[in-house]
Amino acid sequence: MTIHERIGPLFTDLYELTMAAGYYKHKLQADATFSMFVRGHESKRNYFVASGLENALKELASFYFTEDEIAFLEKTGLFEDNFLDYLKRLAFTGQVYAMQEGTIFFAHEPVMEITAPIIEAQILETFLLNTIGFSTLIASKAARCMYAASGRPLLDFSLRRTHGQDAGLTVARSAYITGFDATSNVLAGKLYGIPISGTMAHSFINAFDNESNAFLAYAKTFPANSIFLIDTYDTLEGARNAAKTAKEMKKKGIHPIGIRLDSGDMTALSIQVREILDKAGLNEMKIFASSDFDEFKIADAVAKGAKIDSFGVGTRMGVSADAPYLDIVYKLVNFDDRNVKKLSTGKITLAGEKQVFRKIDAHGMYQEDIIGLRNEDIENATPLLGKVMEHGKMLRPHPTLSEIRERFNKNFSCLSEQYKSIHHAVDYPVTISSSLKTLQNRAEP
Amino acid sequence: MTIHERIGPLFTDLYELTMAAGYYKHKLQADATFSMFVRGHESKRNYFVASGLENALKELASFYFTEDEIAFLEKTGLFEDNFLDYLKRLAFTGQVYAMQEGTIFFAHEPVMEITAPIIEAQILETFLLNTIGFSTLIASKAARCMYAASGRPLLDFSLRRTHGQDAGLTVARSAYITGFDATSNVLAGKLYGIPISGTMAHSFINAFDNESNAFLAYAKTFPANSIFLIDTYDTLEGARNAAKTAKEMKKKGIHPIGIRLDSGDMTALSIQVREILDKAGLNEMKIFASSDFDEFKIADAVAKGAKIDSFGVGTRMGVSADAPYLDIVYKLVNFDDRNVKKLSTGKITLAGEKQVFRKIDAHGMYQEDIIGLRNEDIENATPLLGKVMEHGKMLRPHPTLSEIRERFNKNFSCLSEQYKSIHHAVDYPVTISSSLKTLQNRAEP
Repeated sequence: MTIHERIGPLFTDLYELTMAAGYYKHKLQADATFSMFVRGHESKRNYFVASGLENALKELASFYFTEDEIAFLEKTGLFEDNFLDYLKRLAFTGQVYAMQEGTIFFAHEPVMEITAPIIEAQILETFLLNTIGFSTLIASKAARCMYAASGRPLLDFSLRRTHGQDAGLTVARSAYITGFDATSNVLAGKLYGIPISGTMAHSFINAFDNESNAFLAYAKTFPANSIFLIDTYDTLEGARNAAKTAKEMKKKGIHPIGIRLDSGDMTALSIQVREILDKAGLNEMKIFASSDFDEFKIADAVAKGAKIDSFGVGTRMGVSADAPYLDIVYKLVNFDDRNVKKLSTGKITLAGEKQVFRKIDAHGMYQEDIIGLRNEDIENATPLLGKVMEHGKMLRPHPTLSEIRERFNKNFSCLSEQYKSIHHAVDYPVTISSSLKTLQNRAEP
Repeated sequence: MTIHERIGPLFTDLYELTMAAGYYKHKLQADATFSMFVRGHESKRNYFVASGLENALKELASFYFTEDEIAFLEKTGLFEDNFLDYLKRLAFTGQVYAMQEGTIFFAHEPVMEITAPIIEAQILETFLLNTIGFSTLIASKAARCMYAASGRPLLDFSLRRTHGQDAGLTVARSAYITGFDATSNVLAGKLYGIPISGTMAHSFINAFDNESNAFLAYAKTFPANSIFLIDTYDTLEGARNAAKTAKEMKKKGIHPIGIRLDSGDMTALSIQVREILDKAGLNEMKIFASSDFDEFKIADAVAKGAKIDSFGVGTRMGVSADAPYLDIVYKLVNFDDRNVKKLSTGKITLAGEKQVFRKIDAHGMYQEDIIGLRNEDIENATPLLGKVMEHGKMLRPHPTLSEIRERFNKNFSCLSEQYKSIHHAVDYPVTISSSLKTLQNRAEP
């Protein structure tokens, strides 16, 4: 199981295939444009971080039905033979506009628009929403953690409680994009080249006859990489044992990196443990903490003066616990050169092929976004959607993870503090261009 | 990507491997028993539904390091050659006790205990927690939805917003175990044989020049399987269009199944739409609804008398939105014949190899569970943990999904109503046997 493997077109909702059969039977094969965007209502986020494009494009580039997949569809008894024959020859031949990964965007802005014969674009809906949606969900959550930590390094420790296996990989990647230092996820290290990190759990301490012997054994195994977990029995006693071991090691020229707290009152304990380490002359030893941290608990610890040098951030980031899904949708906005809108209660979709234009103020900060027509010109504004695929082929190599990380970093530095608030909802100004408004009035129905 | 494929031992936290290296260097190779259980604090559930064992055991049975995986570990520079040589020969040789999938269990009760040379059992921690934890999380959520629906059929529509790809498969499987009728997930249909379901989205309606033509086109493509989505423009107008189409189809001997509501006030609309359908003589047409449903919204709709025949349950079930993770842990309880306990603040672990005994009352209902020693006898009580693996080999074929579904169904019928409450926390009685208590007092430290 790796995220690089083909997932295949059966990773879809049945209705995508039954609609496709309906289009086929009624000879609807014209180009359709679908627009993907996040509705604002439930997402509890002032901004989002685009992520997941690389995996999405890889799958689009290898979109086809195998014989085995067709055989399953045949067995359902739902589909006519000529439609199944058509599927056998299907490939993705369309065009994709997308925001590059690492781009900051806002509710209602299309993060991707895809134009293809309607059957291709329809079948891909479920996969694209799943892939872009989840990756973006986690990048947006991880960015908040990173902001709350005010420069202290963060480590992704979420793997044991992510929702399954590729989720663990996606979390490690999305967190790394937004500035996490490393992950505990070894497979993510192998697949993505993300630095990996980690030392010991309570079971290691328990496997030795006492805590000091466990610390010593670990330090002998990894002289350059020891972080002692000190809360198995009593945290302060553990700190004293760790200090004693560290001092012995130092005499031999070995320097343990630090200690880790994993339970109890993080702020109070970190201050007490810092004192113990400092009194032992171990000012260089760092304090790592990992106990239910998310942006809120990190911010709280920082505000209260916790002596924590680095946070291990696990479950709550890895499942985006305060907002575990994005209200991300994929809507038909143009079909056969006809602009389309949908009026369902509370669920407006902007018709037409669009572009997102970003204006920058005199200090280089993001000032305003304008959702406009794809082909209009808006002065002094940068378009955020770029063409990344044409005729089903990628137009350029995907950026490296470091480049994506750098793009996020630049984007984030241009976002004013007010929008970075983790506690308050602050709307960044997103307006609709007059041309796009005019098109709405003319669009069907 | 399928859930049947080998995931591999690098799907682990780095510290599992560094601890393993520490054990290896210090010749700690004795058998260890780890116990997996859910802590009660944060889970918001009165009961849990065991799930995920089949995938866990498959991975245990194919646990080994490939050359490629060893090469990556070598490249990290963290590990000594003799440890890497050791890993090359590693396989899982241990013993597993587990509750069968579909079993209802409670906080603090071990759902799995695994005994193996400590290195094997340690490396597997992350994978086992991830696999059993997520699958159980969703089965426990889905059971609540099923209970709230009071016998109305449920459909899993979550695929677009699950946390990645194997999450989508696991959700379909876990929901089916607890009684969901079908899933929209085509791949889950292929891999697990779960019935698949689904008809049309708004884009299908939008692709035709008007709603009635879209309904007609769909009905012609799938005469036996039409469910018309009626809220694209105006729900009640949509209901009238659907009724008109259905009456025309009926004249030709074709019977559309029903309509689907996807936005607005589900209860009010369902009542109004029922009237429209009934007045048109379409009493047999069913009303499907799919709009942010979870156990709370389903219960609310049922209580208010909504005329909904079947619920499509999506995102909120698929991510367990009100409680998106289980506080599930995997703790060392015995090492080298020494019982081990851990005292970290607020995180007590019961030492020793254990069994869960369930007592049944005179009416066949679950009365009380007793966590005891694995080898003790408790009268008139059924042990819930069974040996499923010995010397790394599965002891019997895994039950079919239908058998698991049946086991859950039987379990659920023996759980008293009070514990099924979706709104109130009610503690089922779980006690600790006197022998297990005695062992705690003797256990180290």
